[in-house]
This record gives sequence, C-alpha cells and structure tokens, in this order.
Amino acid sequence: MKKNITTGLHILGEVFTKENSTLTDLPFIKNKILKLIEEIGLSNVGFTAHEFAGGGFTLIIALAESHFSIHTWPEMNYATLDVFVCNIDKDNTLLAKMFFNRVVKLLNPKSITQREIIR
Amino acid sequence: MKKNITTGLHILGEVFTKENSTLTDLPFIKNKILKLIEEIGLSNVGFTAHEFAGGGFTLIIALAESHFSIHTWPEMNYATLDVFVCNIDKDNTLLAKMFFNRVVKLLNPKSITQREIIR
Repeated sequence: MKKNITTGLHILGEVFTKENSTLTDLPFIKNKILKLIEEIGLSNVGFTAHEFAGGGFTLIIALAESHFSIHTWPEMNYATLDVFVCNIDKDNTLLAKMFFNRVVKLLNPKSITQREIIR
Repeated sequence: MKKNITTGLHILGEVFTKENSTLTDLPFIKNKILKLIEEIGLSNVGFTAHEFAGGGFTLIIALAESHFSIHTWPEMNYATLDVFVCNIDKDNTLLAKMFFNRVVKLLNPKSITQREIIR
C-alpha cells in the first residue's frame, strides 16, 4: 500500500491565551519560531507573513518536512496552530510534538484544543 | 462563548493522482490556484513555494481568510491539500468547499481522502 509510505502527522491547535502582546507581535513570534525550527532540527525552506489591520497576523513556514502555520486574533486572545510533518525520510512525530508544545508555551496559553490527524 | 465566533472550516485532502505532470509543475499549479482564488473571491495576502530535488513541490498561500497548502510527491502520484477558512467576517464555508474541489480537479485525481474539521 502506497498510502503507508506517506503517513504524516498533522497537529491542529486552537489556543486561548492570557492577556499578552505576543498575538500582535509578528517579529517576536517569527524570530522565536525560526530559531525553534533550527534548534529542533526541522528545515525551514520558505515563509510568508501578513499583518492584519486589527493587530492579528498570519505566519506560515514551509518546512522540508511539510509546514507550520499560526493565525492570531488578539481581540479574542485566540490563535490557531498547525504543525504538519510527513514521515517519508524519517519519523518526525516526536519533533512535531515537541515543536508544537514549545510554540504553545510562547503564547502564554489559558486553554487549548489540540487534535492529531494521521494523514 | 468566544469559541463560536472563531469557528472555521479546515478541509484536509490526501489525493492519489493518475500519471500526469501537474505534481512537478509548480508554475502551472501556482498560476492556476492564484487565479482560482481571485475568481472564487478569496483574498491572497502572500505565498511561499519550494521545489524539492525529487521533483515535488510545496506551495502555501496565506489568505485573508486563513490559508491554502499543497505538498506533492510525484514519485508516488500523491499530494496533500489543506484549505482553512475562518468565518469571522462572513461564512466562507461554501467558498472553501468550491475552492477545494476545483483544486482537486486540477490534479487529475484517481482517489481522494477528504476530512472536514470544524475549528
């Protein structure tokens, strides 16, 4: 079955945060996350970012292993996270979980909904 | 409940395709998808793309409504798709489904696994 070869892990998170400035601070988050990617041993191959008029932002990073995204809504102290890694060359499951957890910590979380999809 | 306000739709697709060249043709897919986004009435606010040595590519587009991604593995006639839209300003559910279906058609699909996550 070809499908098994491509099995990847996609972690989807919806985070409500305590009052804090990280959800409007794209440069801070971008800098932290690019460093985290390097530290953890994933490979950044490109990114795009956009700041919205209301103060929220989107940051999406293409990884050799697939991608990362964060969308923030500071007016609701809310952000969504996606960490998607494929496991073709090696099993990246643990790295993905570690990466996800460390990003959540950056956001000063109050509550989180987290789902893991095998795809 | 704040959570209701943020309810979005994330469509995850895993597509096996017939033999064809679209999975190695980033310029073709990028061009088609950027046009499709405009046609459908979603808003592109930035993108990043990467071509891999093996012929596959990643294309991720930040939308005002959240994001789109495609990762291809031509050696397996395989691609993953993500269409994520939030519904804060208006309900983008139908647009997201239309967009997803039209991207799938571009790929000359053989079989598809599709999941819809409310988040």
